[in-house]
Amino acid sequence: MAPIPNPQLFLAAHPVGYPVPDRDFKYDTSESIDLETVPLNGGFLTKTLYLSVDPYMRNRMKEGGWALGSLFEGFGIGEVLRSETDKFKKGDILYGTLQFKAYQVWPADTTFRILPKTQDIPYSVYIGVAGMPGQTAYYGLKGIADPKAGESIFVSTAAGPVGQLVCQLAKAWGLRVLGSVGSDDKVEFLLNELKIDAAFNYKTASTAEELKKFGGIDIYWDNVGGPTLDAALDAMNTFGRIVVCGHISVYNQTPEERYGVKNTYAMIYKEVKMQGLYVMTYADKYADEFYATVPKMIAEGKIKYLEDVTEGLEHAPDALLKVLKGENHGKEVVKVA
Amino acid sequence: MAPIPNPQLFLAAHPVGYPVPDRDFKYDTSESIDLETVPLNGGFLTKTLYLSVDPYMRNRMKEGGWALGSLFEGFGIGEVLRSETDKFKKGDILYGTLQFKAYQVWPADTTFRILPKTQDIPYSVYIGVAGMPGQTAYYGLKGIADPKAGESIFVSTAAGPVGQLVCQLAKAWGLRVLGSVGSDDKVEFLLNELKIDAAFNYKTASTAEELKKFGGIDIYWDNVGGPTLDAALDAMNTFGRIVVCGHISVYNQTPEERYGVKNTYAMIYKEVKMQGLYVMTYADKYADEFYATVPKMIAEGKIKYLEDVTEGLEHAPDALLKVLKGENHGKEVVKVA
Repeated sequence: MAPIPNPQLFLAAHPVGYPVPDRDFKYDTSESIDLETVPLNGGFLTKTLYLSVDPYMRNRMKEGGWALGSLFEGFGIGEVLRSETDKFKKGDILYGTLQFKAYQVWPADTTFRILPKTQDIPYSVYIGVAGMPGQTAYYGLKGIADPKAGESIFVSTAAGPVGQLVCQLAKAWGLRVLGSVGSDDKVEFLLNELKIDAAFNYKTASTAEELKKFGGIDIYWDNVGGPTLDAALDAMNTFGRIVVCGHISVYNQTPEERYGVKNTYAMIYKEVKMQGLYVMTYADKYADEFYATVPKMIAEGKIKYLEDVTEGLEHAPDALLKVLKGENHGKEVVKVA
Repeated sequence: MAPIPNPQLFLAAHPVGYPVPDRDFKYDTSESIDLETVPLNGGFLTKTLYLSVDPYMRNRMKEGGWALGSLFEGFGIGEVLRSETDKFKKGDILYGTLQFKAYQVWPADTTFRILPKTQDIPYSVYIGVAGMPGQTAYYGLKGIADPKAGESIFVSTAAGPVGQLVCQLAKAWGLRVLGSVGSDDKVEFLLNELKIDAAFNYKTASTAEELKKFGGIDIYWDNVGGPTLDAALDAMNTFGRIVVCGHISVYNQTPEERYGVKNTYAMIYKEVKMQGLYVMTYADKYADEFYATVPKMIAEGKIKYLEDVTEGLEHAPDALLKVLKGENHGKEVVKVA
């Protein structure tokens, strides 16, 4: 078989403000690969099926993060085309960290999770509600929020990949759930599809007013930071917990532009706990529990999800920009092959 | 014996900004009491020896806190003059919540702790480093910060009643300690008397620079909020803990004046925990341990303290103002009798 192009995506510049696709990314098709003859050196060759684009990538793109000229990388799904190791065999579908590249040769000691082929859910879901975003939701609730039936939770970016699962797990565990989102469509989705208790569009409604209507909150799942965090601090009940999962409102801001949170003093008399969440910290403790629970709930229709699929690696920059601007509908996934 | 005056201190107005002694307080000497004949109805009569003035009182004074015309109250030390209950006998020295009043009759079911007479420490210390402020330090370290030998801690208002004990317990438990205070005298006190590792005057030095010099911090004991909290968030190590004990920088500010904290996003990637502390929450768990440990350490000279004694109930408003402005040197105590 003749060599074929092996397209890849590089970081071309450290963005200031929102990334600009033509300036900050370089989509390169100059490398080619012969899938039948490329040496594996005891390792294995994968074809990239899906790649995940996520808000945290904006942070990696900045000065001090990824070096200029680095390949983008993130969670993805790959199919094994050839293998010289017993760990993985041709046809295995793998989940783990992939570079933004169509084909890739890996050393034998690379770690991936082999996905089951028996469950009736698409592979792309394993980088969404059953992947890192889903784990983030599950681990953050279990490891930080410690939710109890009858409590109330407020979720920002509630229709996003993490938010969707936070909402549904919280409902399944007996909590009252309020979600905030950036469009009326998403409000409808939360109320009609995910069946949470209340939802609002923060662009047209007042977060403080909506929180007042809903009543005090025991848990705030923070994906956004900024004024929403301030309003939530004001609305927390005594012994409330805040899972600080993301601050998407500030990622594209300079320190000068950044909103300052004024209500931290309320943490004192309400004894609020606020804690930063990094998903991998909890993997040893909860991963097996997660994989035993969540894919099954998805297959049985007990957890719904919304996916926004962008086709083609060359459009990954637009997909990321969509996520950063909140214009995606559900988990943003790049379909590569 | 003839009736004698029973002076008391009332809240006259809800202050805006710093309290103004002549406007917001009313010192009243019109009530009198006959100590030998006042009916006890099965209870007991105390003479107030010491009263504590503390930053939290500013919050109680505002609209929505104490009602206008209420007596001030807080932690204090009283001596039993007469008693009709077996729980307390003449001469007992009591610690608990007292009103700002020279003499007081209590129902039999009132709860006080009887102080030991065997330890060689003055009673006033039981409303300071061995009282609520000391318990705050002890409980917050044990219950929230979970300090480990070799870690580093930054303490704001480090020469204050809580800060003093946080510094000394942290040193005793093997931590590196950095303190910030508002005068060069207090810097000297921290370095020469409490023997902590480093200290600075935040009015003349840059908190961010001092934190950089000291190295990353594992624990931040927050007594002040505002820009100091922001600088600390920036300097926290991964898995750092922030004990939110006070926000004295904002108590006298309107919401508009209040400083906005910009670095909450740093909690995410550093997985920082930040938690509000209210001392009484931890009393059941740690009070006996505290009373068995701290007064002994004080008597043995292992814990030092600094007291700032104001004489006379009529000067309690000035004493409180001193605390709110950071002009006290150590625990502010009002000596009533």
